[in-house]
Amino acid sequence: MAALESDLRLKLTEASSRASFNVWLGLEVDEAREGEVALSLAWRAEFGQYNGYLHASIVSGLIDTSCGFAASTLSGRVLASQLSVRFLRPAVADVFVARGKVIKPGRQQIFAYGEIFARGAPERPFAVGDAVLVPIP
Amino acid sequence: MAALESDLRLKLTEASSRASFNVWLGLEVDEAREGEVALSLAWRAEFGQYNGYLHASIVSGLIDTSCGFAASTLSGRVLASQLSVRFLRPAVADVFVARGKVIKPGRQQIFAYGEIFARGAPERPFAVGDAVLVPIP
Amino acid sequence: MAALESDLRLKLTEASSRASFNVWLGLEVDEAREGEVALSLAWRAEFGQYNGYLHASIVSGLIDTSCGFAASTLSGRVLASQLSVRFLRPAVADVFVARGKVIKPGRQQIFAYGEIFARGAPERPFAVGDAVLVPIP
Amino acid sequence: MAALESDLRLKLTEASSRASFNVWLGLEVDEAREGEVALSLAWRAEFGQYNGYLHASIVSGLIDTSCGFAASTLSGRVLASQLSVRFLRPAVADVFVARGKVIKPGRQQIFAYGEIFARGAPERPFAVGDAVLVPIP
Repeated sequence: MAALESDLRLKLTEASSRASFNVWLGLEVDEAREGEVALSLAWRAEFGQYNGYLHASIVSGLIDTSCGFAASTLSGRVLASQLSVRFLRPAVADVFVARGKVIKPGRQQIFAYGEIFARGAPERPFAVGDAVLVPIP
Repeated sequence: MAALESDLRLKLTEASSRASFNVWLGLEVDEAREGEVALSLAWRAEFGQYNGYLHASIVSGLIDTSCGFAASTLSGRVLASQLSVRFLRPAVADVFVARGKVIKPGRQQIFAYGEIFARGAPERPFAVGDAVLVPIP
Repeated sequence: MAALESDLRLKLTEASSRASFNVWLGLEVDEAREGEVALSLAWRAEFGQYNGYLHASIVSGLIDTSCGFAASTLSGRVLASQLSVRFLRPAVADVFVARGKVIKPGRQQIFAYGEIFARGAPERPFAVGDAVLVPIP
Repeated sequence: MAALESDLRLKLTEASSRASFNVWLGLEVDEAREGEVALSLAWRAEFGQYNGYLHASIVSGLIDTSCGFAASTLSGRVLASQLSVRFLRPAVADVFVARGKVIKPGRQQIFAYGEIFARGAPERPFAVGDAVLVPIP
């Protein structure tokens, strides 16, 4: 099992390294097991909104990527067809964690849920959201 | 009216210049009138997904920003509380255009709609979406 | 073409007559062409919310059904996997019209858009929404 | 605390009895505490979809109502401005339970989450969703 987790993590890390935007972000895959992942992102000033909060683009992208990576632990390559994000609080942290979880796998569609919080503070998510992912044959 | 449009455009351009992520993107405000805006973004390799398409982060961010800017032409400063995006096709273009439009203004909440397409090809949107914006007192 | 429209309308009317909730509602299929339908529903007191507005269940159901019927003009039997509704105004009318339109057909997924308004007043929708539909093999 | 719960439950039951559609459904408020409710609905043939599953209208309405009731335990009268529903599985049961939970209260907006399952089987939800609720002054 430990081996499996580390295999999944390496595979996602390698996939992420081929997405140039993820490389620019400096996105890290911290945990990966079947149907669930945790990503982390260290704050940089370039990520800011008008007021210095994490930009909605990046909040949305973290939800999308955590959902997509969670789905791909079960189904290989996937594409998001639908994403929705609720912005609950201003997103301010030194390190952001995004946790993605499959809530219903399927052959045609995978439903996943994601949330973002400051490292160490999962009880106060900045944003939550969900995605529908479609496996790529 | 021409003056008003150019005032709105300058105001949004100035607001965008204070969002460091928008500066990094190189996002341009091309049109702005009451309740409606058009933004443009020239493709760079750093914006890519695994397969070279525009990353879902940036697709989502363009929908969010076009909705938010459209709302702010009517209501000043706003924050998105909810964003939803449908990814219709792989987003590949030299220049992306995002058009945002208010569909229902309100004192407590503003509903807006956005879409992204390749410049010159509005009839084939890559993604469409909507946002709920809340005015900041 | 007129024949085709009337065929589609009959087919949807017949399908609707097998959904017992639609029969209870008294839902009518007024128009149907490839990728687009219009449904109508005459108000009855049983459809009410606390305040006498059309209940969110029925608002949501009209959006869902108009999207699903629009999709089925192109793809036969479909199931909704995702529905989202924005409630713009209190829904009060003698006759409600729901218009559904496919915005992107697909083999794996169909994206559709719907809106509800009072008959004769399409410019002031009560609610708008969208659905992702999956063809049933 | 027990008194408080029973007060909240009575208040919601009384509110529900003034919504004629809820009365037609036979919707019951089984549990209510601050920020969380459980509703139940006994299946009747009139609630059916083409295939005898619970109609998407009613699935959506249960998500909406469970979110709205959960919000109103904290904020009194509320209106939904946005609802989104993911249909995970065909909804078939003798008794449906809808559980609604506030995930972020607020003065301007309340975010809530809902899910529907067969009584006794919360681990296999038929549908999950979320709503944004706005307090009515």
